Amino acid sequence: MESSVVLKNVIQEGDPVLIWFGDEVTYLVEANPAQKLGIHRGRPIELKHLIGKSYGEWIEVANGKALLLEPTVEDFVMKARRESGIIYPKDAAMILMKLGIRSGSRVIEIGTGSGALTLALTSQVAPSGKVYTYDRREDFQKIAESNLKRAKLLPYVEFHLRQEHEPFLEQEVDAVVSDVPEPWHEAETIRTSLKTGGRVASLNPTYNQIEKAAEAFERAGFVQIEAMEIFVRGILARSGKTRPEQRMVGHTEFLLFALKPASQVV
Amino acid sequence: MESSVVLKNVIQEGDPVLIWFGDEVTYLVEANPAQKLGIHRGRPIELKHLIGKSYGEWIEVANGKALLLEPTVEDFVMKARRESGIIYPKDAAMILMKLGIRSGSRVIEIGTGSGALTLALTSQVAPSGKVYTYDRREDFQKIAESNLKRAKLLPYVEFHLRQEHEPFLEQEVDAVVSDVPEPWHEAETIRTSLKTGGRVASLNPTYNQIEKAAEAFERAGFVQIEAMEIFVRGILARSGKTRPEQRMVGHTEFLLFALKPASQVV
Amino acid sequence: MESSVVLKNVIQEGDPVLIWFGDEVTYLVEANPAQKLGIHRGRPIELKHLIGKSYGEWIEVANGKALLLEPTVEDFVMKARRESGIIYPKDAAMILMKLGIRSGSRVIEIGTGSGALTLALTSQVAPSGKVYTYDRREDFQKIAESNLKRAKLLPYVEFHLRQEHEPFLEQEVDAVVSDVPEPWHEAETIRTSLKTGGRVASLNPTYNQIEKAAEAFERAGFVQIEAMEIFVRGILARSGKTRPEQRMVGHTEFLLFALKPASQVV
Amino acid sequence: MESSVVLKNVIQEGDPVLIWFGDEVTYLVEANPAQKLGIHRGRPIELKHLIGKSYGEWIEVANGKALLLEPTVEDFVMKARRESGIIYPKDAAMILMKLGIRSGSRVIEIGTGSGALTLALTSQVAPSGKVYTYDRREDFQKIAESNLKRAKLLPYVEFHLRQEHEPFLEQEVDAVVSDVPEPWHEAETIRTSLKTGGRVASLNPTYNQIEKAAEAFERAGFVQIEAMEIFVRGILARSGKTRPEQRMVGHTEFLLFALKPASQVV
Repeated sequence: MESSVVLKNVIQEGDPVLIWFGDEVTYLVEANPAQKLGIHRGRPIELKHLIGKSYGEWIEVANGKALLLEPTVEDFVMKARRESGIIYPKDAAMILMKLGIRSGSRVIEIGTGSGALTLALTSQVAPSGKVYTYDRREDFQKIAESNLKRAKLLPYVEFHLRQEHEPFLEQEVDAVVSDVPEPWHEAETIRTSLKTGGRVASLNPTYNQIEKAAEAFERAGFVQIEAMEIFVRGILARSGKTRPEQRMVGHTEFLLFALKPASQVV
Repeated sequence: MESSVVLKNVIQEGDPVLIWFGDEVTYLVEANPAQKLGIHRGRPIELKHLIGKSYGEWIEVANGKALLLEPTVEDFVMKARRESGIIYPKDAAMILMKLGIRSGSRVIEIGTGSGALTLALTSQVAPSGKVYTYDRREDFQKIAESNLKRAKLLPYVEFHLRQEHEPFLEQEVDAVVSDVPEPWHEAETIRTSLKTGGRVASLNPTYNQIEKAAEAFERAGFVQIEAMEIFVRGILARSGKTRPEQRMVGHTEFLLFALKPASQVV
Repeated sequence: MESSVVLKNVIQEGDPVLIWFGDEVTYLVEANPAQKLGIHRGRPIELKHLIGKSYGEWIEVANGKALLLEPTVEDFVMKARRESGIIYPKDAAMILMKLGIRSGSRVIEIGTGSGALTLALTSQVAPSGKVYTYDRREDFQKIAESNLKRAKLLPYVEFHLRQEHEPFLEQEVDAVVSDVPEPWHEAETIRTSLKTGGRVASLNPTYNQIEKAAEAFERAGFVQIEAMEIFVRGILARSGKTRPEQRMVGHTEFLLFALKPASQVV
Repeated sequence: MESSVVLKNVIQEGDPVLIWFGDEVTYLVEANPAQKLGIHRGRPIELKHLIGKSYGEWIEVANGKALLLEPTVEDFVMKARRESGIIYPKDAAMILMKLGIRSGSRVIEIGTGSGALTLALTSQVAPSGKVYTYDRREDFQKIAESNLKRAKLLPYVEFHLRQEHEPFLEQEVDAVVSDVPEPWHEAETIRTSLKTGGRVASLNPTYNQIEKAAEAFERAGFVQIEAMEIFVRGILARSGKTRPEQRMVGHTEFLLFALKPASQVV
């Protein structure tokens, strides 16, 4: 057993902790010596007690016990403070896979919003890559910054304010992710900053948007234009009575992918 | 434009290249001065001509042109040479997301098979993490090794032969992924090597398997046991006639996730 | 314009009427000279005012207008008074189709429940066929009877009390529909009353149930055993912003179908 | 056992028979004293031997046995001879349910095509109702007529040739089903022939079509406009290894429904 690995697991002051109560309810907090967490049942929890515990340990609470967990990027995404739309882990996961984003990648994001997708992108490019995220609203980027900060991912992201059509500061990026309502206005600008062979993803909720986006990317010379939607269906796996869950999310976003080839046959 | 970035994009001898012909057909090859690639239409391509080109460039072929692409992990997964089951990118992407696997993670995989899932895991933990992959069949691991080698991911994986129930060599790993037919036999062994707070994923095609796996993980003290299935549906986004694709994959695997808590309330 | 057709459309005393307020809310009532309907907004409606109106006509209500509709069998199913499980129109429709039920068919139903599926079956066999519906609970059959009565379908159904394993009174029926938790106990009894070439459908929510049911029907000599599940996804078709609905029902029942062949090769 | 019921089950000359060989292959034939059926394995079957057998009986064939089945409307739909698009039973079943079509209904169909949907409609309105089906192509209606004839449903259908925008001959029909590429051109004509309170269904494969259709029906004064799509997923229910089928149909048609209210508040 390597001691370095074990030490990593101890909760330090300022570390994020997901507290799970054995039911559907979880809280994402910071191990903070000065704060209390009001919870859905029983007395508030003094967060100073989390410091020195290890991720995976139980603590006693008023009516039972609670589990201290190291938040995954999915937890940060689902718990992001937000004033704009949500991103679902199923969609973020597929974007990361299809764009080939990995440690070291340089990625432009258009439409920071509350930073939920920024979290997923940044988590993947760390520690040697970077996400350059653009939004026209400073208030959104403030929220996004606080979400990235608590996930300790701020070092891997740069925030920029930008209006539609304005060029990006970066060139030759490995991938671009667009989460804006009118991606067809951005196809040319995206093409300019994307490396040859690089890929773009666009998320949009309506058919009309993905149709217009597909047309725009094709006009701008992109190839391998592909659209899809992803469903997740929960399964209740229980002795002798296993069945799918009765409710499911029927729609979030359509995902559109395209690739920038070199302009000319050599 | 940073020259280092541009250089990275030039195809060197030995580099993997995905060749796309503008239709449904692609080939995953190595830029090799001594080989020819027989293709589905026209004359073979001499692969020495790829060297010195850049990813994203076109080459002329018998009946038109072809695009040279840097393969993503999805391409390596889909093109993996195999004698065992396939893993779908949709499932691999969700496993990476739910397990919180990232650059630096240490992950045990049970059931190397042809290494398709190993590719996805290794790509994510690189360059500072490691995948420890176990199988009882040496012939499968030879295939897996060749698949990892061509993706240049061999440095981030260790292969081990192992029979069911045998302990793993590693301790305190961040996550375990199981792709074996009887995961219920492995719940205790998995628990032993997983760090407190660590997560396990099991992939299985039948309900009977996920039900038995869920029971076994619960008996072994795991919590947050959650099962799901993922669908991907293609959308044909075309001017004035956008519609879903008529064929889709109806089923691949059920995914089961569980978390190892500390054994005792502190 | 044939006057007989027009007359059919006039609401008589005792006729069922579905009242729609232009939003998500509907009420299924009887055109009754002595009753008032308390509604979700504004003053109650005196139901005597419905008599003499035609289906499809608007009436004025407190804050606007409401539409008087002739209920379809789907409306009767969805509005059935119930103390047991619901049946979804998607599942009922497929059962009718797969079993080949039509006007004149003789059908046994096991598990009357609140009569929701009985409504769909009876509506289809009328006016020359009959549904024979069995349940072990008299209280359920009373509810079912009231549901059938208000749909004016009582003449086409016979209610019987029955314990598991007891034989049915009818022979050579065209089809059997089973909506009981342990259909495997009924396979032999069903076979006895079903005509050669006749079909059975079983509805069950868990995988374990359909697996056991499939085994039992196979053991009892049934062939063409086929299971399925049906999803309905709503689409919001709106100018320039068409998209699927965000919520959907993820699971109701699995449907199992089987066919009774003659016992011997001639 | 009622003898009349038994007699109905005996195959007469001219009766349709579905022959099933225990695998995926079936043949829909007529019990004809003069014809032979070439099959996928072994010697042809002389169809005169079917006469006098009962539905549900087995016959001996070259390499085993085959089952004689009474075709359901689903069988007639799936086996319809065709030169135009197919209709899926899942879609036909939902249309019948949502439109409230039943024995005695009078229904206009626009777009006869090969008559697959006509079969489902006619089967449901028989014996006292009628389907009035319109197409602009006489060759299609000839095929449709032969499909209806072999299902013995010709008495319940009237075929009409018609160009777009031409009025229908019938008034006050209970329902209209449209299977044409540009249903928005028909909204007014449909309204004219539909009874107040009657419903229309339109089937179209693209989003663009259902969006335009929804707009047109709304402009024409229809209410309760609702669109959906239906999925069927096969389940392999087998002892100890139950799982969904790996292939499924991903898309057929979107279904749009609307209701014609009276034009004025009374």
